[in-house]
Amino acid sequence: MERILLGHGSGGKLMYQLIREHFVPKFELKTLNDSAVLKGLNKGNIAFTTDSYVVSPIFFPGGDIGELAVYGTVNDLAMVGATPLYMTAGLILEEGFPLDDLKKILLSMSTAAEKAGVRIVGGDTKVVNKGKADGIFINTSGIGMIPKGIDISPLKVKPSDKVILSGPIGNHGISIIAERNGLSFNPPVVSDTAPLNELVKKMLRKTKKIHAMRDPTRGGLATTLKEIAVDSGCCIVLEEDLIPVPPGVKGACELLGLDPLYVANEGILIAIVDHTVADALVKTMRKDPVAKDTKIIGEVKDSPSGMVLLKTSIGGTRIVEMLSGDQLPRIC
Amino acid sequence: MERILLGHGSGGKLMYQLIREHFVPKFELKTLNDSAVLKGLNKGNIAFTTDSYVVSPIFFPGGDIGELAVYGTVNDLAMVGATPLYMTAGLILEEGFPLDDLKKILLSMSTAAEKAGVRIVGGDTKVVNKGKADGIFINTSGIGMIPKGIDISPLKVKPSDKVILSGPIGNHGISIIAERNGLSFNPPVVSDTAPLNELVKKMLRKTKKIHAMRDPTRGGLATTLKEIAVDSGCCIVLEEDLIPVPPGVKGACELLGLDPLYVANEGILIAIVDHTVADALVKTMRKDPVAKDTKIIGEVKDSPSGMVLLKTSIGGTRIVEMLSGDQLPRIC
Repeated sequence: MERILLGHGSGGKLMYQLIREHFVPKFELKTLNDSAVLKGLNKGNIAFTTDSYVVSPIFFPGGDIGELAVYGTVNDLAMVGATPLYMTAGLILEEGFPLDDLKKILLSMSTAAEKAGVRIVGGDTKVVNKGKADGIFINTSGIGMIPKGIDISPLKVKPSDKVILSGPIGNHGISIIAERNGLSFNPPVVSDTAPLNELVKKMLRKTKKIHAMRDPTRGGLATTLKEIAVDSGCCIVLEEDLIPVPPGVKGACELLGLDPLYVANEGILIAIVDHTVADALVKTMRKDPVAKDTKIIGEVKDSPSGMVLLKTSIGGTRIVEMLSGDQLPRIC
Repeated sequence: MERILLGHGSGGKLMYQLIREHFVPKFELKTLNDSAVLKGLNKGNIAFTTDSYVVSPIFFPGGDIGELAVYGTVNDLAMVGATPLYMTAGLILEEGFPLDDLKKILLSMSTAAEKAGVRIVGGDTKVVNKGKADGIFINTSGIGMIPKGIDISPLKVKPSDKVILSGPIGNHGISIIAERNGLSFNPPVVSDTAPLNELVKKMLRKTKKIHAMRDPTRGGLATTLKEIAVDSGCCIVLEEDLIPVPPGVKGACELLGLDPLYVANEGILIAIVDHTVADALVKTMRKDPVAKDTKIIGEVKDSPSGMVLLKTSIGGTRIVEMLSGDQLPRIC
């Protein structure tokens, strides 16, 4: 009998197959984008998204599950160009979970919602017997309005587009694994958890020529770009030297045998944009503290279709696949 | 240290206190209604709701967790008069969960969505290590449109209103507890899980004088009516003899020491309506197979404020409180 593996939740190849095989035929999931875009509802477009958060540990350097649950959904809405407006919070609690921890998490959620300018308007709480969950799981769902004229979709990606990355990779995943295993790195690694909606608003004010946008969470930069390559039918070529990997992340990855390209992030985005606007957009983005290290890290070619290629520092070219198996379970 | 008790998830008094004390001050939850009503979004009103489903067992007489998760959210939208349109599904799976069970549940969700006329447009899947969840938990969030002129809220309830119940109580809760404990009752008890949106549509076509509407799920008829009494500041007086309790539910409740007023339902609704329209509305409702046993079970008085009173079969009057403690955990 086939059973669910941890890798089915990893954001990588196994999850992709599970979703393609079993979810897409049953539900109306067209491209695996961060939010559903609902057209013609009241003559405007509305974005609608959901995410469950099962991160372990629930408190980690740079954030906690509550903040993560709010910003994660805010960012999913922002990635389709929506202004996040409303959110619901569905909590599953394990019997015996400390009320003080719950209070801390709720405070963290409301602070994050305020910071991101989103309103939590509905909720649900379930409690399961001791041993039947792990402290707390949080689902957040969000809706946002998409301004007229905005249509961001991997289907719009085309050859000659530039690939922009808003900051260094790997901080979130490594901060979780460090906390989980009692490791400390020098320099210390802190989660990049942050809301990206203000950044996106500024980007869209600068240009409408943003073709695709994603935040590389589970599965990391590699898996997210591979999904865009597959959906667009184009080839994405990256320059390894241009991808910023902080020294702490680099050291941790070497020690733990991880590839930073596959480590989860919670406060950066990838934008694939028309080459004519790329340089100006990078300048605009760098003015926002959340994206001060923005860089162009690659470009889009027409073939080989659906591939991501990485030009390595030593002059080779590596094929970048989706995360396979399960590098880091319960990272978000 | 205070800890979360199973009763915090029961839909009763403990949960009410938890939400009032810790959630309401932090989030924008005004009345504890089934869906948030978002005004002025694109000039129309949109309903938005979320619910997590942790029912155990996941397959039970009359339904399964997938169907329940779809209809539960459809019904929450319908209870504020909204036409359910879109839904997301967030799954938390335990490592080792049988893929065949997942397929059955996904099929059940898509069938239910089709039956209820709602589209599942987004999803999320997380997997946690074996022993850190219990098979499968499902969150569904939904949005719907509220037709112009519809404003259903417990705040509109007033003395002389009639209390309408759309069917017999207790079937869902008893079917779950029977399945969980390997009990069988004669006549057998089958969950009433069903979508109520078509019924609600017909009701609203008949009259706009529906003041409050709720589906009495966790906490049962008693807790739901008590919440409406508290929110409205009115007194709700019920006639015990008029509340339909099926023989199987009655027998099971006697055997298990349960009060059917507190047992969860998943396919009935309570409507509190202007007394001038009550009889005609009951007639309309009875034409729908899902509500063929609709009855007026009580009325609204002005005092004592916030109370629910039950006139018993033997001529006494009993004060009906919220469910206290935890009668039946993980019922939905």
